[in-house]
Amino acid sequence: MFGGLVRDGSWLEASIDTAEPNRQPIPKPDIRRMLIPIGPVVVFAASNFPLAFSTAGGDTASALAAGNPVIVKAHSSHLGTSALIGSAIIKAAENCEMPDGVFSMLFGSGRIIGQALINHPSVKAVGFTGSRTAGRLLFDIASQRDEPIPFFAEMGSINPTLILPEAMKNMPEKIAKLLAGSINLGTGQFCTNPGLLLLLKCEGYDRFIDELNNAISLSDPAVMLNENIYKSFEANKKSLLNQPNVHFLAKSGNIKSGPNIGIPTIASVDAMTFLDNADLSDEIFGPFSLIVRCSNKEELQVVIEKMEGQLTATIFSEPSETSSYNLIINALKLRVGRIIFNGVPTGVEVCDSMQHGGPYPASSDSRFTSVGTGAIKRFTRPIAFQNCSNGDLPDELKNENKLNIWRTIDTMLTKEIIRSI
Amino acid sequence: MFGGLVRDGSWLEASIDTAEPNRQPIPKPDIRRMLIPIGPVVVFAASNFPLAFSTAGGDTASALAAGNPVIVKAHSSHLGTSALIGSAIIKAAENCEMPDGVFSMLFGSGRIIGQALINHPSVKAVGFTGSRTAGRLLFDIASQRDEPIPFFAEMGSINPTLILPEAMKNMPEKIAKLLAGSINLGTGQFCTNPGLLLLLKCEGYDRFIDELNNAISLSDPAVMLNENIYKSFEANKKSLLNQPNVHFLAKSGNIKSGPNIGIPTIASVDAMTFLDNADLSDEIFGPFSLIVRCSNKEELQVVIEKMEGQLTATIFSEPSETSSYNLIINALKLRVGRIIFNGVPTGVEVCDSMQHGGPYPASSDSRFTSVGTGAIKRFTRPIAFQNCSNGDLPDELKNENKLNIWRTIDTMLTKEIIRSI
Repeated sequence: MFGGLVRDGSWLEASIDTAEPNRQPIPKPDIRRMLIPIGPVVVFAASNFPLAFSTAGGDTASALAAGNPVIVKAHSSHLGTSALIGSAIIKAAENCEMPDGVFSMLFGSGRIIGQALINHPSVKAVGFTGSRTAGRLLFDIASQRDEPIPFFAEMGSINPTLILPEAMKNMPEKIAKLLAGSINLGTGQFCTNPGLLLLLKCEGYDRFIDELNNAISLSDPAVMLNENIYKSFEANKKSLLNQPNVHFLAKSGNIKSGPNIGIPTIASVDAMTFLDNADLSDEIFGPFSLIVRCSNKEELQVVIEKMEGQLTATIFSEPSETSSYNLIINALKLRVGRIIFNGVPTGVEVCDSMQHGGPYPASSDSRFTSVGTGAIKRFTRPIAFQNCSNGDLPDELKNENKLNIWRTIDTMLTKEIIRSI
Repeated sequence: MFGGLVRDGSWLEASIDTAEPNRQPIPKPDIRRMLIPIGPVVVFAASNFPLAFSTAGGDTASALAAGNPVIVKAHSSHLGTSALIGSAIIKAAENCEMPDGVFSMLFGSGRIIGQALINHPSVKAVGFTGSRTAGRLLFDIASQRDEPIPFFAEMGSINPTLILPEAMKNMPEKIAKLLAGSINLGTGQFCTNPGLLLLLKCEGYDRFIDELNNAISLSDPAVMLNENIYKSFEANKKSLLNQPNVHFLAKSGNIKSGPNIGIPTIASVDAMTFLDNADLSDEIFGPFSLIVRCSNKEELQVVIEKMEGQLTATIFSEPSETSSYNLIINALKLRVGRIIFNGVPTGVEVCDSMQHGGPYPASSDSRFTSVGTGAIKRFTRPIAFQNCSNGDLPDELKNENKLNIWRTIDTMLTKEIIRSI
């Protein structure tokens, strides 16, 4: 994923202002700026992504691609996988003659090893994917160091999904099937799982509910990632279903034997109750979704305006109706990192334009993404060279641009070289 | 400064990945990403820049340019100037038919008004220029909110300056004159003031000291910005001069009558003492500089490696000698935001390539600059639109690119439009 990016070089934000020795009232110096590695990065492996967000996952890849050494704190729920992949990385680093220490991994308690890592003065940034409680605790440690460091936590989200009336009228069954699949994808253990369906009572609503109930009843339960996740899922689901005015709607009718089976389940509640009871907004990590019945557009607007930051929001709509929901869509934009139209939030494309990270508490820092090429920016900082001789500049900033990268020269974006100045 | 930037649009980091409906194993959706305003920004006006870093200064300009409303906390040392400029901004906002509330200003205690502003849930970012103590206190409030927010503090720096042996041999008087001017520029009240001169005992050293003593003796004292700054300058200078092994070298011999006159002063100390006494690294805000005498290259290296983060470092050198000081220059790069060669650190050019912000404690966040067009990035966050109809996209991401901005389309940087997809 980072190969093209690293070769293209535009991520470096190389920028050159050439000198103007005759400028009045004072000469303008030659100044050149680019991003450099921020320093050693600690990566906390995620429980729910043994590959994509762990030892050799997105955090490690982006930190290494930016030029930083990485120290991974392995996750206790997949120690074997971590060890295998860690060895492969070390072997690759040796083959590529990378410096010793470019990658290392530690096993042990997050409370002891993890906190000690964040507090180490040589560590300059941290990537984390996990729960809100753990994320905030570690964020606080990182920000309260003598030298505070950036702490990038992706802490999950309930990913609100809206169905506008025309879409509900025209394709309730289709949307219900799509959503049922997304709710149970990976046994509901994606951080972009649609955990909250915001619905208006309108034509098609009953058909939608019937089909969703049906699809969830027919869905396949599966083994969850580990016992802790399963136990939390069961406890949180049970607690939510016991809240006043929350109605159980459906669960999978298929039986699968064995431990830690997550059974897809849906429930519903009216918007007024939802607004009054903050517990109903808590993430239930697993194959579960709560339908919030809004009696009108205004109620829907209030629900959105009271919502915390989210990784994503999803809108099912017909082209004709989006303009009359401008206020609602704008309120959503202020609260999310990515808006999906007529699709599902699960499935996070790894590309330049992906934004995986939303306003707090979805992420600790909404200014960055943890998926896609933009993730590299988390582990860099700029440096400027003023009046530096061409020979002493990094290659990225030299006149001859032999790396052929995009640079902003005297306010113009270009791949040109600079001739005889 | 932001006019060209806003028109050019490359700061938005607009990026488009077009759909690949036939991709295997799953279709690729259309995803488009750009930066949007982060939300209401609080700006703490600086004491030392009544214009450039206060009411209508760099923080306000960059926050407004990014599209955010701004609330300025006026600085008590220039209330009249603040009020005049605040009125001008309000008038301009009305003339341009900006929404009410795009700019406001509050007068009063930093401890009460300032802290209340940072704690307000609607505030999404803060810009600050001032002392390390105040900066850290406010940073802690911002990071300990229920929803932590970015806090950009520029907290000053002692801006180490090195003179390599060939340069010292060939032009000691010239460098001494340049530095004396820089030490006393604005009565030493620029955050890039060269407060620390790291010198090797070598040929030319004595001539340099003689000329620096001479230039400082002849320099003009002037009124400092306010009584507090003057009193701190006097107290800190006195305390430093009383430390063991610190030798007074020279001060201005010119007499100027009146209150709060800052008298340019220089002193020197040996490197071993400097390394042993952390107090000697504290910033003395005003026209003062401390010379650290290093007996060899290795001692110089150790001094740099023990140094805290700095806004700038300055190197006087001849082209022939930089390669033999690679280790030292690299150690500097890890600790500063800008390196100046054969010039002075004062005078911060406002341009694309400026980096004004260094590793902590020079700034609270070395990933951003508070001067230059890059400052706008502090007050933005990305949002991605997935499978959004062309009509519902922001103009910056629409197929037709009618704003004619740079965008990354399918990994290529271009101003092209997208045809019929």
